[in-house]
Amino acid sequence: MRHIINLQVENQSGVLARIAGLFSARGFNIESLSVGKMDSEAASHMTLVVRGDDWIIEQVIKQLNKLIDVYRVTDVTSTDFVGRELVLVKVYCPPAKRGDISQLVQIFRAKVVDISNRSMTLELTGNEPKIEAFLETLQPFGIQEIARTGSIAMVRDSNGKM
Amino acid sequence: MRHIINLQVENQSGVLARIAGLFSARGFNIESLSVGKMDSEAASHMTLVVRGDDWIIEQVIKQLNKLIDVYRVTDVTSTDFVGRELVLVKVYCPPAKRGDISQLVQIFRAKVVDISNRSMTLELTGNEPKIEAFLETLQPFGIQEIARTGSIAMVRDSNGKM
Repeated sequence: MRHIINLQVENQSGVLARIAGLFSARGFNIESLSVGKMDSEAASHMTLVVRGDDWIIEQVIKQLNKLIDVYRVTDVTSTDFVGRELVLVKVYCPPAKRGDISQLVQIFRAKVVDISNRSMTLELTGNEPKIEAFLETLQPFGIQEIARTGSIAMVRDSNGKM
Repeated sequence: MRHIINLQVENQSGVLARIAGLFSARGFNIESLSVGKMDSEAASHMTLVVRGDDWIIEQVIKQLNKLIDVYRVTDVTSTDFVGRELVLVKVYCPPAKRGDISQLVQIFRAKVVDISNRSMTLELTGNEPKIEAFLETLQPFGIQEIARTGSIAMVRDSNGKM
């Protein structure tokens, strides 16, 4: 199963290496990872997406909780959460194709962030299925480059989905 | 100086641990990191943001180039690039404050992704200064939680900035 794990960690050199080591020692591949600054300079926020057996992931969470640089671990997978990721994609686009690609940009509510005579660079935010669908639709035009953040997630306060 | 480094790496367990180890062994703190899937399942894309002396970072890039799981290393810092990050922020918001916060959402072109009687969860995409300005403006309302991806970056094909 795909697990999204939120971590609050001390913002210091070596923390990431220790956490990554914990996963690789068990042969887990981290599917995506986002590390960003938090409100205070002293703490960082990390979101890990890992696929694996539920029982084993439970063990890894226990191990993470033991690391002194880790302040808090939350497996948001079983909660009602908002999950988002961001992708930048450069697609082959001679002037004649601009109309077709602009149409897709509108449908997906993406943004054009750069344009030249041979390419368009697009930005899209959404959950994983939306990003995957966008990339699949662009595939026939010729994708030249993709830069993609991992998922970040936040537990909902509301009861319903917006 | 702040360096943004793009990496194409083999998508396998242990690569992240090796890269993180390379930085921590030199006492560098990775300011932000994004790891996401690429087009092919076999490769991952990584964007590292690191602050440090130019000469030392040059050495680290040379070391990265030597790792066999690393296909390509690009320091985009000196090029003309599009840099973007994504933030989810949960802010304290009783019904009476909804108008004030909605105004900020409009100004920054953010999105409301969740709302309850005590909070609003907002989503914003932009470059680092924009994200920082947004968070600073929300500060007085009371920030409850922040999840933030690191920067991702892509070299521009065009000459001008959009």
